[in-house]
Amino acid sequence: MAKIDLFKDFEKNISFVILEETYKTFQLCSKDLNPLHTDEKFAKEKGFSGCVMYGNILNAFISYAIGMELPTKDVMLQTQDIQYKKPVFLNDKLVLNLRTEEIHEGVHVVIFVYKFLNEQSKVVAKGRVQIGIFE
Amino acid sequence: MAKIDLFKDFEKNISFVILEETYKTFQLCSKDLNPLHTDEKFAKEKGFSGCVMYGNILNAFISYAIGMELPTKDVMLQTQDIQYKKPVFLNDKLVLNLRTEEIHEGVHVVIFVYKFLNEQSKVVAKGRVQIGIFE
Repeated sequence: MAKIDLFKDFEKNISFVILEETYKTFQLCSKDLNPLHTDEKFAKEKGFSGCVMYGNILNAFISYAIGMELPTKDVMLQTQDIQYKKPVFLNDKLVLNLRTEEIHEGVHVVIFVYKFLNEQSKVVAKGRVQIGIFE
Repeated sequence: MAKIDLFKDFEKNISFVILEETYKTFQLCSKDLNPLHTDEKFAKEKGFSGCVMYGNILNAFISYAIGMELPTKDVMLQTQDIQYKKPVFLNDKLVLNLRTEEIHEGVHVVIFVYKFLNEQSKVVAKGRVQIGIFE
């Protein structure tokens, strides 16, 4: 069986928590110290309950999902997009729902749609990811 | 002057290096240990000269650029997309070219186009970012 056939009807829910470690390692990686993410007073002035987490932590979770949670490790990211719908905060528990939308066997490409849901089952972010399969 | 006016004709080049620290902190943040990024032998079998860096390190750089390098810090990511064009390796020096594509004053939105260039001036990734401005 071709590896790409593993993605037919593929759907998975993957749980994440935005831990202090997640926040701090992202900050060290990115060097992004924008006050929305680092200054509680600033974030509250903008109408949030506290420092808003970096949106791109969710893209780091996408990296994990694609790299570690698919039926084969023989994959490589080609394109990604994300729409941020609601702010995410420290210690939030999220579930990523990832499912195959399209399979293009001739070019070894799979396109997924995904959404991140918070504990209130609200969509906090959604988008698409396209990967190539090493057959 | 409205803050959004600061983005008229905005264009900036921002330099990044994918340091060992960048790679390791991203790995700690994401927990992505896919062998393409961690096993040199595996990466070479797939035709690369060594471990391929996580594509989402570039999205962490976008986080920095939007959070720290714009004419105002009163911004928030709304949407992002990225197309990966060439692999990126440890110690690669990249330049991000970021420029305003559209301004929607009525909804306080700016859309940028961007590209990451390597030392050979080849585009390694490109995309769009939409932000909201806190006026």
